[in-house]
Amino acid sequence: MGSQVTIEVAAHAGVCYGVERALSMAADAAASAPAPVHTLGPLIHNPLVVRELAETGVGLADTLDDANAGSVIIRAHGVVPSVIEAARERGLAVIDATCPYVKRVHHAAERLVAEGYQLIVVGESGHPEVEGIMGHADGRARVVSDTSDLEGIELERRVGVVVQTTQTQDNLSRIVSELTRRVDEVHVVNTICSATQERQQAAAELADRADVMVIVGGKNSGNTRRLAQICSERCERTRHIEDASELDAAWFEDARLIGVTAGASTPSAHIDRACTRIQELTGAAHAR
Amino acid sequence: MGSQVTIEVAAHAGVCYGVERALSMAADAAASAPAPVHTLGPLIHNPLVVRELAETGVGLADTLDDANAGSVIIRAHGVVPSVIEAARERGLAVIDATCPYVKRVHHAAERLVAEGYQLIVVGESGHPEVEGIMGHADGRARVVSDTSDLEGIELERRVGVVVQTTQTQDNLSRIVSELTRRVDEVHVVNTICSATQERQQAAAELADRADVMVIVGGKNSGNTRRLAQICSERCERTRHIEDASELDAAWFEDARLIGVTAGASTPSAHIDRACTRIQELTGAAHAR
Repeated sequence: MGSQVTIEVAAHAGVCYGVERALSMAADAAASAPAPVHTLGPLIHNPLVVRELAETGVGLADTLDDANAGSVIIRAHGVVPSVIEAARERGLAVIDATCPYVKRVHHAAERLVAEGYQLIVVGESGHPEVEGIMGHADGRARVVSDTSDLEGIELERRVGVVVQTTQTQDNLSRIVSELTRRVDEVHVVNTICSATQERQQAAAELADRADVMVIVGGKNSGNTRRLAQICSERCERTRHIEDASELDAAWFEDARLIGVTAGASTPSAHIDRACTRIQELTGAAHAR
Repeated sequence: MGSQVTIEVAAHAGVCYGVERALSMAADAAASAPAPVHTLGPLIHNPLVVRELAETGVGLADTLDDANAGSVIIRAHGVVPSVIEAARERGLAVIDATCPYVKRVHHAAERLVAEGYQLIVVGESGHPEVEGIMGHADGRARVVSDTSDLEGIELERRVGVVVQTTQTQDNLSRIVSELTRRVDEVHVVNTICSATQERQQAAAELADRADVMVIVGGKNSGNTRRLAQICSERCERTRHIEDASELDAAWFEDARLIGVTAGASTPSAHIDRACTRIQELTGAAHAR
């Protein structure tokens, strides 16, 4: 190995605006909001960050029943509107860290439902962002994760489409293409956020050239998993880690270019730690 | 050859509601409208029918300048609104034989433009139906015949899509899929008419089984040409004829199943003449 090994971080990687904003709101809340401060569910899909938050005094409440005093932080993924109402009724201070791009999905969903469309939410069933979006729709709305899910749905004449912010363009395009064949009117509001697109494009571009790809971020993070999937389609030696301690020298044997990318819920410090550890393991002369 | 040869006409083939209506309105006009009676451009894209109409006293005017008295029939493809106004200003009786499904495209185009979308008309540039649709849009509207046409267009954030009634679902799906990647909001009103879809599906189904496919209809008919294209992708021995007199015994050598279909502008009598002639040439025992 030695000096021929290069580490390259994808041009767009790691923490996005919405996550940075949520982390900053949580830090402010720890300092000044009525105590105790809890996030309702993990603030972001990154176990390391959740542990770091706990150290600053921001606890994790699974439901409102676990947070019966002080302040509650609504996480970046957003929630159904009734949760915010219920928190206020309990006298909790509500700090809404819902990502502004997720709010855009909520508004698009409400608008399409108000205009009479049957709403299709393209996303992962059960994902908190998707659950939150569904809370802004009506009883006719359905979640579709791929084209095969359309089989089980009785489609109406006019269908509106919104998208979980971290979905891939390819999946959305396939679903819209199929819907266009099946119904009279399809109104798509493409709510995939640009940070997601940029990370996906940069990851694909780097994975096309790299010998090994390392994806840093929560195993429970949908957008990080999709980056890993995009990379593994282009680079056989793709590894998804949560922390630098998981890195193994054997992964990098004979590699000349090691690509690194990270999901939108991965703080820069975690990327830096991974790069430093790869340098230690491979003797890479420099990282860029 | 002999008794093993079968002729099968596609389950949906030939003249559609809009064309039947236009032919019937032209017959009525020949009998009772102020003379002379002209169609503005060919009533439908079928040279034989145009000749038959001339024999009943319905002439062909290329422009309003060729029809300066009596009645003018607006053809099934529709026109831009200013043509109807101009005809009325000249004191002509206007008989509007625009297909109701084409009118639906005009209304969808007007609605999307009024709602602020940049309009994309999926269709053949220069086709009279497409020209008519464009007349119901604004200066930002563009015609797109396939995905490559999108390259030359500066797309806005919000794009509305309507479709020439006789386009294929596949082409529409490809274009919508690509648009979904490129803009924030895509509002598709799928104005492909069900007659077109039925004819295309039935043609494909028959072409998959047939040894030879014969497509009957105007060479200048877009929907007939698309049927020929769909069939030639599934059956190598596909022939597009305007009239039974073009049929050649050599085409049917060793054929066991001969499929016949026809565009929406092909009267039943023309299909019958083709079937009779194929029977004469091949000795087919029966047609169904």
